[in-house]
Parts: sequence; C-alpha cells; structure tokens
Amino acid sequence: MKINILVILMLLTFSAAAQKRSRELGIKIGVLSPGSLNAITDVAGVKVGQVTLSEGADVRTGVTAILPHDGNLFQQKVQAAMYIGNGFGKLAGYSQVEELGTLESPIILTNTLSVLTAADAIIDWTLMQKGNENVRSVNPVVGETNDGYLNDIRGRYIKKEHVLNALAQAASGPVTEGNVGAGTGTVCFNWKGGIGTSSRKLPKNLGGYTVGVLVQTNFGGVLKVNGVPVGEEMGKYAFKESLDKSSDGSCMMVVATDAPLDARNLKRLAKRVFMGMAQTGGIASNGSGDYVIAFSTANRVLHETSESTFSANYLHNDYVSPLFLAAMESTEEAIINSLLMARTSEGTQGHKVEELPKDKLLGIMRKYGRLKQ
Amino acid sequence: MKINILVILMLLTFSAAAQKRSRELGIKIGVLSPGSLNAITDVAGVKVGQVTLSEGADVRTGVTAILPHDGNLFQQKVQAAMYIGNGFGKLAGYSQVEELGTLESPIILTNTLSVLTAADAIIDWTLMQKGNENVRSVNPVVGETNDGYLNDIRGRYIKKEHVLNALAQAASGPVTEGNVGAGTGTVCFNWKGGIGTSSRKLPKNLGGYTVGVLVQTNFGGVLKVNGVPVGEEMGKYAFKESLDKSSDGSCMMVVATDAPLDARNLKRLAKRVFMGMAQTGGIASNGSGDYVIAFSTANRVLHETSESTFSANYLHNDYVSPLFLAAMESTEEAIINSLLMARTSEGTQGHKVEELPKDKLLGIMRKYGRLKQ
Amino acid sequence: MKINILVILMLLTFSAAAQKRSRELGIKIGVLSPGSLNAITDVAGVKVGQVTLSEGADVRTGVTAILPHDGNLFQQKVQAAMYIGNGFGKLAGYSQVEELGTLESPIILTNTLSVLTAADAIIDWTLMQKGNENVRSVNPVVGETNDGYLNDIRGRYIKKEHVLNALAQAASGPVTEGNVGAGTGTVCFNWKGGIGTSSRKLPKNLGGYTVGVLVQTNFGGVLKVNGVPVGEEMGKYAFKESLDKSSDGSCMMVVATDAPLDARNLKRLAKRVFMGMAQTGGIASNGSGDYVIAFSTANRVLHETSESTFSANYLHNDYVSPLFLAAMESTEEAIINSLLMARTSEGTQGHKVEELPKDKLLGIMRKYGRLKQ
Amino acid sequence: MKINILVILMLLTFSAAAQKRSRELGIKIGVLSPGSLNAITDVAGVKVGQVTLSEGADVRTGVTAILPHDGNLFQQKVQAAMYIGNGFGKLAGYSQVEELGTLESPIILTNTLSVLTAADAIIDWTLMQKGNENVRSVNPVVGETNDGYLNDIRGRYIKKEHVLNALAQAASGPVTEGNVGAGTGTVCFNWKGGIGTSSRKLPKNLGGYTVGVLVQTNFGGVLKVNGVPVGEEMGKYAFKESLDKSSDGSCMMVVATDAPLDARNLKRLAKRVFMGMAQTGGIASNGSGDYVIAFSTANRVLHETSESTFSANYLHNDYVSPLFLAAMESTEEAIINSLLMARTSEGTQGHKVEELPKDKLLGIMRKYGRLKQ
Repeated sequence: MKINILVILMLLTFSAAAQKRSRELGIKIGVLSPGSLNAITDVAGVKVGQVTLSEGADVRTGVTAILPHDGNLFQQKVQAAMYIGNGFGKLAGYSQVEELGTLESPIILTNTLSVLTAADAIIDWTLMQKGNENVRSVNPVVGETNDGYLNDIRGRYIKKEHVLNALAQAASGPVTEGNVGAGTGTVCFNWKGGIGTSSRKLPKNLGGYTVGVLVQTNFGGVLKVNGVPVGEEMGKYAFKESLDKSSDGSCMMVVATDAPLDARNLKRLAKRVFMGMAQTGGIASNGSGDYVIAFSTANRVLHETSESTFSANYLHNDYVSPLFLAAMESTEEAIINSLLMARTSEGTQGHKVEELPKDKLLGIMRKYGRLKQ
Repeated sequence: MKINILVILMLLTFSAAAQKRSRELGIKIGVLSPGSLNAITDVAGVKVGQVTLSEGADVRTGVTAILPHDGNLFQQKVQAAMYIGNGFGKLAGYSQVEELGTLESPIILTNTLSVLTAADAIIDWTLMQKGNENVRSVNPVVGETNDGYLNDIRGRYIKKEHVLNALAQAASGPVTEGNVGAGTGTVCFNWKGGIGTSSRKLPKNLGGYTVGVLVQTNFGGVLKVNGVPVGEEMGKYAFKESLDKSSDGSCMMVVATDAPLDARNLKRLAKRVFMGMAQTGGIASNGSGDYVIAFSTANRVLHETSESTFSANYLHNDYVSPLFLAAMESTEEAIINSLLMARTSEGTQGHKVEELPKDKLLGIMRKYGRLKQ
Repeated sequence: MKINILVILMLLTFSAAAQKRSRELGIKIGVLSPGSLNAITDVAGVKVGQVTLSEGADVRTGVTAILPHDGNLFQQKVQAAMYIGNGFGKLAGYSQVEELGTLESPIILTNTLSVLTAADAIIDWTLMQKGNENVRSVNPVVGETNDGYLNDIRGRYIKKEHVLNALAQAASGPVTEGNVGAGTGTVCFNWKGGIGTSSRKLPKNLGGYTVGVLVQTNFGGVLKVNGVPVGEEMGKYAFKESLDKSSDGSCMMVVATDAPLDARNLKRLAKRVFMGMAQTGGIASNGSGDYVIAFSTANRVLHETSESTFSANYLHNDYVSPLFLAAMESTEEAIINSLLMARTSEGTQGHKVEELPKDKLLGIMRKYGRLKQ
Repeated sequence: MKINILVILMLLTFSAAAQKRSRELGIKIGVLSPGSLNAITDVAGVKVGQVTLSEGADVRTGVTAILPHDGNLFQQKVQAAMYIGNGFGKLAGYSQVEELGTLESPIILTNTLSVLTAADAIIDWTLMQKGNENVRSVNPVVGETNDGYLNDIRGRYIKKEHVLNALAQAASGPVTEGNVGAGTGTVCFNWKGGIGTSSRKLPKNLGGYTVGVLVQTNFGGVLKVNGVPVGEEMGKYAFKESLDKSSDGSCMMVVATDAPLDARNLKRLAKRVFMGMAQTGGIASNGSGDYVIAFSTANRVLHETSESTFSANYLHNDYVSPLFLAAMESTEEAIINSLLMARTSEGTQGHKVEELPKDKLLGIMRKYGRLKQ
C-alpha cells in the first residue's frame, strides 16, 4: 500500500484550519494565561513533528514526535519522570527513566501495536546520529493508544520511515491538532479525539516559568467541558445504559517545562497532569492506559563527563505549586482542544466516529453561562 | 482544661442541622445515584463516630473514627489499600496495609500533631478487646490534616479518651458533617472546610455495589462546585495575587465498598478518589497531604486460621470501571458537602474563617444553570 | 548472513553436556531440596525454548522463551507481578502486568537492542493463534541484557523468526544452560555468563509447592559461590583497581511457582529473587538492569467470561515465607549454574571472555570447606 | 516502676566491652575498608544516642537515636529517602520523606508499640528547639522492631523522657552495640540480636566518600557469617522442622553518607542496604518489617529561604556504584556485629535467648577457612 503522506498532511492542515480551538470559541479554561502559541512548543526548544496515515477505508493512524531540544538528546539528556495513571498500556521506556531520572530519546506517540516499530526507529535514529558511534544501549520512550476502532490496527501500517519522518520534520511553532499524527484514529468520550495541546506561562511573581502539555486522547467517562456537563447534555457518557467498554482506550500525556525541576518534582508535576485529565470527566477506566511523561529543559545531564559531580540549580519544593496548577489547566485545555480540532472520521469496517458537534456544544456552553465573548 | 464534649456535640448537631447538603440545595453532582443515606455508612456495616473539641478561643479540633465492621477488626481484617496523592503528611500505618493488603484497625482522622496519640489509643483499644489477649503488634491507621490556623495545634488537646470516645459512639446511620470531629478546625479553598460524605449505589446491571466516601477537607486550589467556577466568581483562589500557601493543608479521604475487590483493585479505586478531589479544583499543592484509604467489606481475612489457603470471590478487572466513576462522584460530592455543612468559625489568635456564603453560592450556581429545582 | 541454528544448537548441546552444574560438582546451595530437574520446568506446565545465534566473529546472541502453560496464554492469563531491582534496562510490558496482575504473553529474554523485535514477534504469534482472531491489544513481556561486548549488538541480528522458533520449540524437561539462547553473549562477574536455572520443592509440611527460577546473567560485583569469596580469591571483582564499569550489565530473572499467589504476593516473591542475586555478590550497579518477572500457574484468569466475579483459592500471607527462602536459594543456584555451564567465548572485535576456571574454582571451594563429596 | 537507666547503661557498657566485634575476631567482611570507627558515626556530623531499659524480669527494651547533624534539623533538613524491603512494620514518617526528599527530624528506633510515644517525643523536642517557635508540622521518623519475646511489650515502658534522653546524650565517636538501646530485647536468627554498626570509606579513586550503617536486628532466615553456613552448622535456621515463625520480626537499617546524593540516588543506596541484609541469609519473611532510611549530609535544604531556587552539587549516576558496594558490605558487617556484641538475655515470662556462641562460631569459621589472623 502506498501512502501519500504529504498530500494527506496538506489536507489535514487545511481541514484543521477550519476548526477552532477552545479559546477561539470562547471557552476559556482556568485562571492562568497560556503562552503565546498555547502549545507545548511554548517551552523553548521543544519541537513537535507528526506523520498522518489516512488511506483507503482501513488506515487511520500515525505518529507524533516530541523532541525536548534540538541537540543530541542521547549525549545531552534532560531530567524526566513518568507517572502511570492507569497502566493498561504498552508504554516503552518506563523503568530507565524512573531509575536514572533522565530521558535520552525523543518521545514518540503512536498506536498500540506499533510501539515496537517506533521504538526500533528511535534506536536507528539514535545510533545513526553524529557523536553516537559508540552507543550500544538506548532507552526509547514510546507511548500509545489503541486506535483499532477506526484503524485496521492489526494491519501494522506504521513503518520505521514514518517515525523517522516525524522526527525529521519536528519543528517549533504551532502544533497541528485533531485527526493528526498519533491522534488520527482515536476516539475520546465517544467522539472523535486526537492530538491536543495547550500551555501556561506563570506570571513573574509565581516564577515566570512555562508549562506545556500535549495529549493523544482516546479515553472516556462523562465529558465535562470547562465544568459544563456536556456528556450528560448530549446523552453520551460511560455506562449510560450498561457496562459498555466505551470508556476504555487510553490517554497519553506529555508535559514539558523550563522550570528547573529534578526527577522527583517532575513526577509530582506529571501526577497533576493526570489530575487535569480527571477534570474533563475522564475516569481512567480499567481498560485505559493513562501515562504522563514529564521533562524539564532546564538542567541537561551529559552522557559523558570527566567530572564525577555536576552542579545544578533546582526549584525549592515550596515553589512548585503554581506549576501544578499550570499543568492541570494545560492538560484540561489540551484535551478539550483535541476534541474541538478533530473531525468526523470513517475508517475500517465502516466504523464512523462523529466529531463533537460544535453548534450543539456552543449552545450548551451558552446555556451554562460558560461562553466568553 | 475541661472540655465538655457532650454539650459541644449537641450544639454542633443543632447547628449542622440548619445547614443543607449539596442535593438538598439542588446541586446534583454526577450521573450515578447515591445510596439511601448518601454517606459512607451506606456500605453495610460501616460505622462512624466523631468527637468534637471546641472550647474557648484556642481549641478547634477533634476526632473522626471509621469502623469497617463491628466485629473484632484485628481478628477479622478487611482487604485494603492506600493511595498517596501527595505525601506531605503524617499518615500512620501505610506500609503494612500496602504489604499485606489488609486493614486490622479502625481508621482515625485527627489533626497533624495528634496522629500519635490517636494511634496509641487504637493500640490500647485493640489490646483491650476481647479475643486480643495475645496481640503484640497492631498497625493503627491514622490520617490527619493540619488545623493549626483555627486550632492551637501546639496545645495538643486531643487525648486518648477522645479517640476512645469516638470509637465507642461509632454508629451506622447518617453522618454529621461540617465543623465536626476531625473537621472542626479545617479550612478548604479558603473557606471553612470539615467532614463531608457521600455515596453511590450502582444499578443492578453495573453490579449493584455501593461505594461510600468520607473526607476531611483542609486543602486548596481553584474551587469548582459541580463544574461551576465558584472560586473565580468569589474572587478567592490559589495564587490570585501571589505565591500564597493557602492551597496547602491536606485532604484525607476514606473510601469503602461492598464490592469484592482485592488490595490491587482497591488501590486503583483509591486513585479515583484522588481524581474526584481534582474535579473540585484541588491541586494537591506542595504542602498538601492527600491520602486515600480504601477498604472492601466483602472478603474478611482471618488473623488466625488453621488453613493455609483461603477461598475468595473477586470482581474481574473488566467490571471495576463503574466503581471508579462511583468513587469519583462520591468524592466530589463529599468535598462539596464538607463545605456546605461547615459554619463560620473563629479560633486561636483571633483567626476567623468564613463559611462558603450560601446565598452567593446559590446565585452563582443559578447564573451557571447548575441549580436543579 | 546465513545462520545455521540447528547445527549451532547441536554443538552447544554437545559442549554444554561436558560442563557440570553446581550440584554435580559438589556445590550444594541452600537448605531446601531442588525439584527433580532442578529447573524452572519443575513447575508443572512451564516450558522453555531457546535459539542461539553464534556465527562468524560477530554474532553471539539469542533468544530464550518461557511459557507459563501450553494453552492459549492470551485467553487464559496467569497471575503475575514484576519487581524492578535496578531499572537501567529496556524491559517491555511492565505497567500492564503491574496494573492488572496478569501475564498474557510468553516471556522472551534477548539482547538490549532486540527487545522490540522480540515483542513484535510475540504480537504476531498472539494474533495468529487460534481463538485470538479479535485480539487488538497484546502486552508482550520481553527482558534483555546487553551482550554488546561479545556480540555486535548494533548489527541487530535477532529477527522475528528466531523468536517464533524459540517459542515453537519450547518444551518441558531439562533446560540447556550456559552460552545458549539469550545467554549466548553475556558476561557475569567478568567471566562468561549465560542462562542458568534451578528450583526448590518445599516439603509437605511447608506446603509442598515448587518454585523455579531461570536467569540470564550479565552483571557484576564481588562473586561469592555458596558464600565462598571466589571473586577475591581469583583477583577479579568490581572496583579492584578503579571505577571500572565491569559490574554494569544486567540480570534478568524469571520465577515460576505452582503456589496459589495473587499479584501482591508474587511481587513479594519476585523481590526475594532479587535478594538471591545479592547472595552471589551482585551489587545491582548503576548500569545494571535487574528485573524479576514472577508468575503463578495456580489460578488462571480468563480473558473473556460471562461472570463478573471469579472464585480463587489463595495462600494466606502467613504461609508465604518458605516460598521466599525457596526463591532466594533457587536464584543463587541458577546464577551459579549459569557461570558453571558457560564456556569461554570469543566474539566481535576480538573480544574474549573466559569461563570461570573449574579446577581453580574447585580448589578454592575445597580450601573453604565448601565442596560436598 | 522505676528504671535506673544510668546504672544499667554502665553495666551494659562494661559487659559490651567484653564482647568483640567482627574484625576483632578475625572475621573480615568485604573488599572495601571501614572508616576509623567502623561505625555510622564515621560520617562526619552523625551522632548516636541510646537509652536502655532493662529492669526486673519484664523490661527489655530501649531507644536508639541517630542525628544527621547537630544543627537545627528542622530548619536545615538533609536529603533523604526510604526503601521498604518488607512492609510488615510500623515505621512513622515514610510518605513525607518520599514526597519531599528530605528528613527534618532525628531518626528514632524503638519497639513496635512505642513508635507513637517516640514520634510524639520528637515533636516535643522539635517544637521546643530554639528557632522553631512557629513550627506547626513536624514529620518524625521512627522505626521499630518487635521485642515482645523478651520484653513485656504490652507494658509500654518507653516514655517520652527516654527518647529525649537518647537525643540529649547523642554523640560522635564509637557506638555501643549489642543489647543496647532499641536492640535491648531483639532476637536475630534465633540468637540474641541487637544494635550493630559498620562503615566503609571509599578510596580516593572511587570518590573518597564514607558510608555508614546502623542496624537494629530482629529478623531470621538461614544465618551466614561472611558466607559461612553458620545457621546450618549450628542446626538453627528457618523452617528446619516446620513452618515456625522464628524468621519473622524485622530489621531496621539506617544508612548515612557524605556523598552528595539526591533523594533518588539515596533510595537506590537504601535498596543496596537491603541487599546487604540478604547476604547474611535474611529472607525478609512475611512477618518482617524491613526498612531502610538513607540520608546524605552533603546538601542541606533550608526550611525557610527567600530564594526560590537552590544550587547543589550532585554525584553523577555513573559514580554511585562503589557506594552501593560500600552499603552492602557495611550492612552485612553491621548485622554480624549486632550478633557478636549481644549477650545472652532472659526476659519476660522466663523467655531466654542465647547469644551466638563465640567459641563454636570461631570453630566453624576456622573450619571454613574464614578466620583471618
């Protein structure tokens, strides 16, 4: 099967442009202010690249890559941590990040059955990089959600080149959301989900740091949009009739910050991202793989060094709380953005998932006094 | 100092009666239905007892006791687990519950500097119990929040007899909420917090199980009442002006269920209770000790047995998700109940904490279309 | 490159036969008795299959597969847990086993850069299996150590067919040890390491259960053989001269039992396996990835079931301690067996690793009064 | 009951002097060298104070206090972590140390039913300290083992003054071992256990750091002294005849270092202490509460500071492995010291526990070629 990625990307960019993000629609989440892009890329140096596979009736999947900085990630690791909200998933790379407190690879998001291909591609990518000629061990970090309702996931369409392509085109600037990259075939709260992002920039008196979140949404529960019971109003929510499994599915969340946090405080930050997911009505159902990957761009850890010690500047515990709020708000808004930017999609076996109906949504938001104009 | 507990309890009972719970006010949280009492005591066998110390200017504290059943708890342990949301607290009993998967004592909630007295009282209570003549090791479980703003916490007013008293008067039936027991001096979202409770009874087709939650609220963030931005509307929320520490303080949460869950699934349930806290706008700030204790009344574990194995009936992983939703909803409503049932209180050093103003609150709820009538 | 697996296997079987296991040499570890095979396959139903790749100067690697039973593993999961001794490794499958308490795939051991290929092969294998036509999510469990000193690990010689081959030939009965399967290129305590196995069968009055361990040894420290300071006597141990990294490298350990343990007690059992590693003088150095995977064959968990609950018989906490001792002893002996059964090997870049010199070893054991005859 | 502590202490000091430590007897554990005192107090600034209660037939218990430095511990916290080997115990203070990565109190070891009294005493001690006038929350860290075989533990003889006394007399220099402080009534491998200590000083080329360990031994298994099967030779070991519970009981371990480790690496160090316990043949039985508390004296964390960030110098992950070996060796030797320095003791209900018979031990060590002269 030949997949014309460029054309698809163009189409998606076009169609996505027609959708509006949360704030553009007048849905203003939280009390803190976003960064200028309202995206994970507001954290200086962070890059995102995505490849979308959408072809024929069966292929609805893709790859989203996040790079903490554009140096050699293996040689200049970033401090990192992970939090497992619900572990029914196939995330690669957990234990080493936890043990060493560092991330030495890009983060790749993709579908469940392509984790291994993606991780393998990261290994190739790392081994090929200049300066890594002697590397014999790499810890690829790859998250996933299961897009098997719209995508013929057993077809295993993701190949290494798609991953390498996503890495190659990673860039600063705005991030495409909705049915793109790893979000191409996902389903969230029974609506079309996808990729979403958001950020917060703390005011000077709270430290001035930036927190950015990117999510791949494929989970369920009882949807709340900025606290408004949209799931109930639309009559679509978990266990409405019976013990359906519609709330299963997973959410991958990545949080970046320029605040100087060590692995311990990054793990705490990651936990607040999971709390942000809860605010949208996600329940982390039994079948959900809900993971958060957190990293700080502030203190790089060199792979090779002649010094036995390193000096670093860290934020005191007493000053982390505003970052926690920033992480919660960014996550809530990123998830809502993923829903707003997604479009109705048909896929394998004739399955069709509707996008969250915007008119109806806005009507509900207005009814509940939650539409800023 | 002589503290007349009975009189105070009567007064509190009286004043609490004048307040209204969430549903009585028309604030209906969630999609599932509460049990008949809408309290943790809806889980058959669970008992709650509270002692309130409120005397003079300085004493605003107390004890809340939860008993999983009214047999000998040490000899007939219940399966249990804990989840640490944010560990800045002094909970006693964590590691043994985690290692063995069982709870062998009542759960006591009190203030930070009285954990040890309370735990000591549990030991006394257990050693004295009929059938425990040979017991030489007890694992008391005691949680706390810091009521030091209203209460002269350094005065250490809680004595063993208060704990024993709370245990002695534990009963089924309705649970007093607000400024009572361990919630006497607590502060939540900058308003008077306290004890709150709520429950959910799953419909038959989701298993028919009951989940009940009791909370001691002393934390902060950006208050949302059933999704409505009450904190913003009232102009009172974390970091509004600066890096205040008003969001510090802690939340103790206890969840009980009659669903046959083992320790692993109880830990998962406990995590959803923490997610319920997130839905109220709690941020689990750095200074917060946010703990969840979960137990199931379904399968008792005998302390002494001649059999090396035991037979038990457990819920499949696939059937736990509705319990997760029930736990989230119960927690959200229990926290809101704790705020609604609390009354303005003055305490040590002339400190005063206002209760959430009901008229203003109802106005805001109405404005946001969230008042059912 | 063409690799003639069968011929190599025959050669290895032949050469391995010339080596002797710990007990055959008179080195009797522990106070409990082994099962009849003194192997992980003493646990009824457990099967092991291995494929060895040893070709030319560069290829010294392989695959070891462990199957908990010979039914459909995905449809009839076994209860399982993992313990991470030191997390500097690339184990696949951790979080789902931990979250759900079950293992739904075979366990594959291989080299660091082949984890993904192996996991991918498990997915293929599972998807192809009869009865799994609708499976869209699989949690492959793959462990690894880094054989990059003897093996040209960057060559990525392990292909899916090697993994499928190992699975296909898995069998009950004796397990080949030493330079075989995933142990083909490993190095342990600066000597040639490899695959090792051992078991213990508890006497009736301790429950009569069997515990079996299989290890892939590639780690370091200060070798002790049955408590005898062999590392010191041979002048080969960690940090003898300087901060060498010879103690890095990893140890993968798998423990099986027929005792009816749930996931919580299996995790405790797994921790004792790690303690057994400590008894050989392993230090779990910074660069070591030391993981234990534990499963019980006693209570199967059905993937699909019309019942919401399941009944199981479990061992009381009070009866698990003998299993802990059995796990420690089995692990210590399995590690020593891996050293004793390995043979001197030359590999990539002219690297050569000597086997533990048997005559010298026996001399030392005799000197320290530890050779039973 | 009046307990004459001073007289008892004098007697104990006298009797202890008659016993010999491991190295004095010619039992040289490990490849690294001890510090000058071969005690936890080799880590500069660390102090130990002990109070022994041994009166009449029934009282055999006490308190051991460890202070990381002699400044105000609450205002100048040390970085710290804990590792739970087996959690069947009542350790106070776990979650806050884990969450914040700091220790703000002395460490007290005592008996199971006196944890609360001891923790309460730490609170008093902290609140009373100059500079702590505004402190309203303290996280006391107290570990315990159950000395209820020799000590009438239900009598609850430890009072706050004993704890304050231990703190008051804490000093640098040699540490009394054996039947002293929290080790007065403990039993280890069915012999009299007690307090033991040891240390390692790394050579310059491995960093030059010091690691010191102090243990309170009350556990069981199959005793090995420097690898020699002493338990078997003496015919005393776990499950020799039946499922006895003699291996239950617990081991509290404290490790201090001047190496600049953060909480994450301190937790890793703590885990190696647990591995050191495994080397003595301890099995961490079901009923054992085996905990390790680790702290570094290198980077102090100020309780109050006007700066939001702090600068610190930390050891790279790559350089921690020698510390791991040092921790394992120190622990093994500390445990053996606790056995060698303990004396036969009679206690409550006529219970008597013999000390490890030295002549017999030395005979066995000689037989196995493990006695250096």
